[in-house]
Amino acid sequence: MSVQRSTEPARYVVGVDFGTLSGRAVVVRVADGFELASAVHPYANGVLDATLPDGTPLPPEWALQDPADYVDVLRVAVPGAIAASGIDPGDVVGIGCDFTACTVLPTLADGTPLCELPEWRSHPHAWVKLWKHHAAQPEADLVNAVAGQRGEPWLPRYGSRISSEWLFPKLLQILAEAPEVYRAAERFVEAADWIIWQLTGAETRNACTAGYKAIHQDGRFPTDEYLTALHPEFGDAVDRLILTDLASLGDCAGHLCEQAAGWTGLRAGIAVAVGYVDAHVTAPAAGAVGPGELVAIMGTSTCHVLNGTALREVPGMCGVVDGGIVPGLYGYEAGQSGVGDIFGWFVDHAVPPEFHREATAAGIGLHELLTREAARQAPGAHGLLALDWWNGNRSVLVDANVSGLVVGATLATRAPDIYRSLLEATAFGTRVIVENFVDHGVDVDQIVLAGGLTKNRLLLQIYADVLNRPLDIVSSDHAPALGSAMHAAVAAGCYPDITAAAERMGRRQRHAVTPDPASVVVYDRLFSEYLRLHDLFGRGADDVMRTLRHIAHDARASASGSRAAG
Amino acid sequence: MSVQRSTEPARYVVGVDFGTLSGRAVVVRVADGFELASAVHPYANGVLDATLPDGTPLPPEWALQDPADYVDVLRVAVPGAIAASGIDPGDVVGIGCDFTACTVLPTLADGTPLCELPEWRSHPHAWVKLWKHHAAQPEADLVNAVAGQRGEPWLPRYGSRISSEWLFPKLLQILAEAPEVYRAAERFVEAADWIIWQLTGAETRNACTAGYKAIHQDGRFPTDEYLTALHPEFGDAVDRLILTDLASLGDCAGHLCEQAAGWTGLRAGIAVAVGYVDAHVTAPAAGAVGPGELVAIMGTSTCHVLNGTALREVPGMCGVVDGGIVPGLYGYEAGQSGVGDIFGWFVDHAVPPEFHREATAAGIGLHELLTREAARQAPGAHGLLALDWWNGNRSVLVDANVSGLVVGATLATRAPDIYRSLLEATAFGTRVIVENFVDHGVDVDQIVLAGGLTKNRLLLQIYADVLNRPLDIVSSDHAPALGSAMHAAVAAGCYPDITAAAERMGRRQRHAVTPDPASVVVYDRLFSEYLRLHDLFGRGADDVMRTLRHIAHDARASASGSRAAG
Repeated sequence: MSVQRSTEPARYVVGVDFGTLSGRAVVVRVADGFELASAVHPYANGVLDATLPDGTPLPPEWALQDPADYVDVLRVAVPGAIAASGIDPGDVVGIGCDFTACTVLPTLADGTPLCELPEWRSHPHAWVKLWKHHAAQPEADLVNAVAGQRGEPWLPRYGSRISSEWLFPKLLQILAEAPEVYRAAERFVEAADWIIWQLTGAETRNACTAGYKAIHQDGRFPTDEYLTALHPEFGDAVDRLILTDLASLGDCAGHLCEQAAGWTGLRAGIAVAVGYVDAHVTAPAAGAVGPGELVAIMGTSTCHVLNGTALREVPGMCGVVDGGIVPGLYGYEAGQSGVGDIFGWFVDHAVPPEFHREATAAGIGLHELLTREAARQAPGAHGLLALDWWNGNRSVLVDANVSGLVVGATLATRAPDIYRSLLEATAFGTRVIVENFVDHGVDVDQIVLAGGLTKNRLLLQIYADVLNRPLDIVSSDHAPALGSAMHAAVAAGCYPDITAAAERMGRRQRHAVTPDPASVVVYDRLFSEYLRLHDLFGRGADDVMRTLRHIAHDARASASGSRAAG
Repeated sequence: MSVQRSTEPARYVVGVDFGTLSGRAVVVRVADGFELASAVHPYANGVLDATLPDGTPLPPEWALQDPADYVDVLRVAVPGAIAASGIDPGDVVGIGCDFTACTVLPTLADGTPLCELPEWRSHPHAWVKLWKHHAAQPEADLVNAVAGQRGEPWLPRYGSRISSEWLFPKLLQILAEAPEVYRAAERFVEAADWIIWQLTGAETRNACTAGYKAIHQDGRFPTDEYLTALHPEFGDAVDRLILTDLASLGDCAGHLCEQAAGWTGLRAGIAVAVGYVDAHVTAPAAGAVGPGELVAIMGTSTCHVLNGTALREVPGMCGVVDGGIVPGLYGYEAGQSGVGDIFGWFVDHAVPPEFHREATAAGIGLHELLTREAARQAPGAHGLLALDWWNGNRSVLVDANVSGLVVGATLATRAPDIYRSLLEATAFGTRVIVENFVDHGVDVDQIVLAGGLTKNRLLLQIYADVLNRPLDIVSSDHAPALGSAMHAAVAAGCYPDITAAAERMGRRQRHAVTPDPASVVVYDRLFSEYLRLHDLFGRGADDVMRTLRHIAHDARASASGSRAAG
């Protein structure tokens, strides 16, 4: 795009996107959303899913992070992006952050993470629980059962099922398994709010994560009576652990403190926007804040955000929050818990050496090689079908206990075949979500894809063919960071609200990919097979996936029991 | 075992086992079955499943072989085994051969394979069709439909379904797709008979392959009327192409001709036993020729042979032949079309480099490494379940169009987990077959495992646990070759019949592996899941596997159509 000229001196904002494996900072011009530069910093401790850094083992299904890694992003990626942009850091007027959610940590009253205190450092429950920590399923089952029994009015707002990934199941797991940690925690804070706390020195809470992840609806959290019904000691969870003074969309959370100014190299005192969920902040970055514009942010997982003019109860969505994405519309969220994660798993754990050697020889990555090989096939030619549930299913089943399935394997099946079937499976999963919204009265007029996976042309074509729609693409890798920068621009007073900012700063490539009619026909056939297996294994008619989890759980328990006895 | 002493000079026999990938010769002492030495010769052209040696491409599901490779086994493995044994070749009194079946080739009247004639060399239908050639499914469907419609009395003897692997579907495919080859073929010969023809110089046919693979029952082949109903030109198939003068079990087919004496280094004129099916010849090698003794020969595929005192119609078995294994009993056969083949597929196509490196560093094979890692797990702990249908399902579904399935995959799934689930799936497949025999009135009192896979201790333990029975093992790799040697001893007149030979020359390790009660409980749970999915996907309630085959078929046809048009 062309660089706009103006008589005013240019003003800039910084957006920081905290993802699953790394944090990324981008420097953006306020006037038009032009991205000058970005820098990424991988978390040193990544995702802790086997042991803590000191070697303490973690049970299956756990996923933790180290909050020190988040601060390192502020210290490394922000100054890195500023330096790469060549601007004067003094021209930056605001900073905003978005985060994975629900990603939550226990802290003291001053924000110090429990896991940074020597006495708690070896205790897994003292660390950050990452969004994809899946060990709180029993607690999620309890949350849902009690809510259903009591007829809690908020339940249908969350597709009638609260996910184990969200706040209350995670807190309840701490209380059940480590009451000493629960009691020692003076706060439980979404990482999205914790990072703002580090930037401003002042504690705030954002309405977005509260609405989508902490069951805040119609101005209220769940009642003490409901929480007590979950656990006698859980009644004061909201009062004691979650501040109820919620900052709204586009609010200024405070001003950059001296310590954070030192980390980032930015001026102390500039505006800091309220923290936000990564997916929701991508909608304005795409300029897709109108009703019926669905934005799918495709990374390790995919999050779908969509505005609607009316409040509908859609089964299996993640949630609907009034003004959750932009003011004046109902913000709907849905999600696929494993997308890029599944492709990554396949590449890491199921591809034989010949492809590794070929990729090395060609000087390309394994994803690129497998994509190239898979792209040579006609749709359907591999004879495979997969259910994309390696990481459970968020929408529309809301079930962490379903699992991945591949059917159709023969002795002639090769790695690119399976790789392609996994790409397709995630497209089918997206189609289920889109059709579910439409079937329940929430229109989907346009689909916009964003996130790192949009670089894969084969994947885009498969999505267009499976969805049978032209797709818009946000080609920037930095869409969430750009969205955060837009929030920073609003917080700094450069725009009256996020809709106005989106109009000037957001952008996307319209109809970047269009469906191929012949492929649409093949994928319609495959999708009807997918849908039947989806319902068969996902909706309880055949319970093999859950039974296998039970058997595995019993086997591990019995094995550790016999080790303890032996 | 100890070497027996006798006042007579020792006499020896040679058994040759023609497998899927190689041929093996073993030198055996007539008196007690002691194996002195063996030698193996891999087929230079292996299995032709992508192209002919000259590069002519093969369609999917094809599997051919080169008859010259069989002769090379006689020229290399037989003298190799004799040399290794240190005996005087003049002390060898007979030779016997067993073969995979139905493995069939078109020849001239003198036995010359069509594929060795220059004018036919590039024609795929002129080559040997290996047992696992699966491209004749449409013809098998026709064979079954017409037989069902006409109420052919032999159909229930074959589990009510003739497999695409057997003779008539294979011949019918040639007639349908290449009538010029069909007409040029003066003979169609089972490889088991063709190799005997090469050894003796005279054409014979054995009753075993005729009974199990060519629908010979109660002294008759299918009628001309039935064959004409399949195809107007097929009516004389039996008269013209298959000699009806069948040689029986233990017969002497003839005497070693000069040319074959030159190849093998054995004396011209010694007895040559009638050719036989590899699996059936293993029963005497195991000394398991009584009723209720089931022998499972586990290699790339598994074949189950079992004698019964009464004639029963067992759905999904491969066949029952009066005296098919030993005279005086009904010989039942069942099979699993993919076993070692599936493990091999996994190792070749789905194991990441780290395991390859680790195996190399440890100086062991990949199968051994994965087995070692998988053996560390408690049964059920991997949370996976597979359907072992990578190569279709022979018993009890008799369906080449079903396919492999894995369910339960998560981001934590690793190669040894999947490997173990595949071992288990084949054990579940065996259990289905055993229970199917028992449910239909054919007792299974003892199970004997034989074949190369019995070297894998983990596999044996899994089979014992899944079947909940102590298992006997034929630990020799050479069991089929030993069985062929025993037939040679009968043909040479050293024993009156195969039962007498089995008594002296056969052996097995009784109760070599016994079930672990705790594992039995876990595997009972997993088996009930396997069985439900087996019936769901195998018996037509959910047709996804066949639908995926259709979609793949259409996709390939349409892709080659657009290539042709473009």
